[in-house]
Amino acid sequence: MKGFRPQKIAIVGAGAIGAYYGCLLARVGHEVHFLLRGDFDVVSREGFHVRTRETQFHLHPVHAHADVDDIGFCDLVIIAIKTSNNAALAQLLPPLEAPGHTIFLTLQNGMGNVETLARLFPPGQIVAGLCFTCINRTAPGVIENYHAGRIQFADATGGPARAHTHAVAEMFAAAGVASKAVDSLERALWLKLCWNVPFNGLAIAGGGITTDRILASPPLRDLARALMHEVQEAAAAHGVEIPANHVAAQFSLTEGMGAYKPSSLIDFVSGRPVEISAIWGEPLRRGQAKGVDMGRLACLHSLLRHMVTSR
Amino acid sequence: MKGFRPQKIAIVGAGAIGAYYGCLLARVGHEVHFLLRGDFDVVSREGFHVRTRETQFHLHPVHAHADVDDIGFCDLVIIAIKTSNNAALAQLLPPLEAPGHTIFLTLQNGMGNVETLARLFPPGQIVAGLCFTCINRTAPGVIENYHAGRIQFADATGGPARAHTHAVAEMFAAAGVASKAVDSLERALWLKLCWNVPFNGLAIAGGGITTDRILASPPLRDLARALMHEVQEAAAAHGVEIPANHVAAQFSLTEGMGAYKPSSLIDFVSGRPVEISAIWGEPLRRGQAKGVDMGRLACLHSLLRHMVTSR
Repeated sequence: MKGFRPQKIAIVGAGAIGAYYGCLLARVGHEVHFLLRGDFDVVSREGFHVRTRETQFHLHPVHAHADVDDIGFCDLVIIAIKTSNNAALAQLLPPLEAPGHTIFLTLQNGMGNVETLARLFPPGQIVAGLCFTCINRTAPGVIENYHAGRIQFADATGGPARAHTHAVAEMFAAAGVASKAVDSLERALWLKLCWNVPFNGLAIAGGGITTDRILASPPLRDLARALMHEVQEAAAAHGVEIPANHVAAQFSLTEGMGAYKPSSLIDFVSGRPVEISAIWGEPLRRGQAKGVDMGRLACLHSLLRHMVTSR
Repeated sequence: MKGFRPQKIAIVGAGAIGAYYGCLLARVGHEVHFLLRGDFDVVSREGFHVRTRETQFHLHPVHAHADVDDIGFCDLVIIAIKTSNNAALAQLLPPLEAPGHTIFLTLQNGMGNVETLARLFPPGQIVAGLCFTCINRTAPGVIENYHAGRIQFADATGGPARAHTHAVAEMFAAAGVASKAVDSLERALWLKLCWNVPFNGLAIAGGGITTDRILASPPLRDLARALMHEVQEAAAAHGVEIPANHVAAQFSLTEGMGAYKPSSLIDFVSGRPVEISAIWGEPLRRGQAKGVDMGRLACLHSLLRHMVTSR
C-alpha cells in the first residue's frame, strides 16, 4: 500500500474532530463524504465553517449524508464517533468497505477502539490516530480549533508503522496537520492517557473546573500526579516504560494551556455521553488484569460513572 | 476512680452532640455547664429544647457560658467541638482541669482526638466516646435526635476499659443512653470508620446525596465496599481484625436508614468545616504508614479537600 492515495474518504461521526479533519482533507482536494446526524440539514444547506487561530474557511458544498448506504465503498474511512457509541460501528462500517482494500482510521479517544474495529476487519486495514488538540463544534456546522495540535498514527497490529500508516500520516501532513507515524500503538496510548486520565477526570469530578484550577488546587494537583503514576505502573506492567520526565512534562504542558476545558468536561456539562470506558474503564481493567491495583483510578472511575448517570 | 460520680460537668462545644448529651445528663440531676458561642444569647434566655422520636423536653434554666474561665474546675469535661477546630483545645481545656482528677471525654468523630488530648493531659484522665447516632441542631437551642443510637466508651491508653471508663459509661446509661465500655479504642475507631469513610465521603463527593442514593448507584455501592476493604486492610496492618461480616452488616444497616444525611454532608452543604482530617486524612496516614496503599481513600480524601476549599 506504499503510495496509498485515497480517492474517496468517509467521515463517520462528523462531530468536532471528524468534521475538522474532514474539512482539512477536502480543502486540499480529497473527495470527503460526511456522515451526519443532528447537523445534516444545516451542513447540507450551508456547509462547514472552520475557524482556527490562524485562519478560517468555508467548505461548501459538502458531501453530506444522513445514511451510510448513500456513501458506498471508500478508500479511507475515518471513525470519529464518541467511543460510548462504538456498538453502532458494526452497522455503520461494513457498507463502506471494499474488502481487503479500505483503511479504517480511528481518531477516537482512549483504549479499546482498535479492538472494536478488529472484530470487524483485519488488523492490517486498521490505523489508530491519537489526536493531541482541542477542537469544538460551537454550533451546527461551525468548528473551532484553538490550537494547531498534532496526530500520532500507529498500526493496529501493535508493531512498527507500516507503509499504509506512513501514507495516512503523509496525507494528513499534506493537509497541514502536524503528523507523525509512531512504532507502538500501546506506548502511544498509555502516554496519551497520562494526561487524559487525570485532567479529563478531575475536570468533571472536581466540580466542573478548567485545568488551571486543577493545577491551582494542591490536593487535586497531587492527585493528578498520583493518577499519572498509576497509569505509569499499569503501562510498565504491559511492557511500556513511561519516563519520569513525561509525567513532569504533562504539568508544564498544562500550565501553558490556561483555563482549558477538556473535551470530557464539555461533554459532561452539555449532557452528551462521556467516554468513561475508553478513557478510564479500559486502562483500569488492563492495569488490574496485570495485578496493578490502581485504587485512585478505580475511585475516580466509579465517581465519574455515578456523576454521568445522575446528571 | 471506681464509683466516680461527677459533681460538675462541662460541655465544650455545645453543638448537636454536646448539647444533646449535656441535656440528658442535666435532666437526671448532674450540674452541667455549657460552653457556647453563636447560640449563647438564645440558650441563656430560653434554654435548650430537645426532641427525640419518643419524647421532648425543655432544659431551662441552663448554665450557659461564653467564656471557659467562668466555668472553673470540673470533674468531667465532655469535648464535642468539631475536630477541625481541635487546635483551640489547648486554650479551652486547661482552665477546666483539677490536675490529676478531671476526666476528659471526647465524643468527637474520627481518629486523632485522644492524641490531641494526650498532648495536654495524662492518658489516664482521657476517655473516648464513639457515638453511633444522628443528632441535629435544627435552630439555635433546638436539638433533634432521630434515632436513639448508642455510645462506645474506651480508655485513651489503648488498653481494656478501666474503672473510670466504666463509670462514665454507667453515668450515660443512667441518663438513658445505650452505653458500653469496650476494650480497644483502636478497634472501635477502625470499626466505626468502616461506615464513616465511605458513606460520609461519598455523600459529599457523589454530589450531595443521601445514603440511600449511594446504595442505589451501582458504581458508588461498589466503591463504598472497596473503601471499606481498604479500611479493613489498614486496620489489619495495625493489628485490628475487622471481620468480613462487619462489612456486610454496614450495608444492611444502611439500607435501614433510608434517605439519611451523614453529618459531614450537613456540614458541607451548610458551609461549616468538614472533619477531613479526623475521618479521612488520619486513617489514610495511618494506613500508608504501614505500607497499605489505600488508593481509593487517597483519591476520595483529595477530592473532599478540594471540594471543601472551593465551596
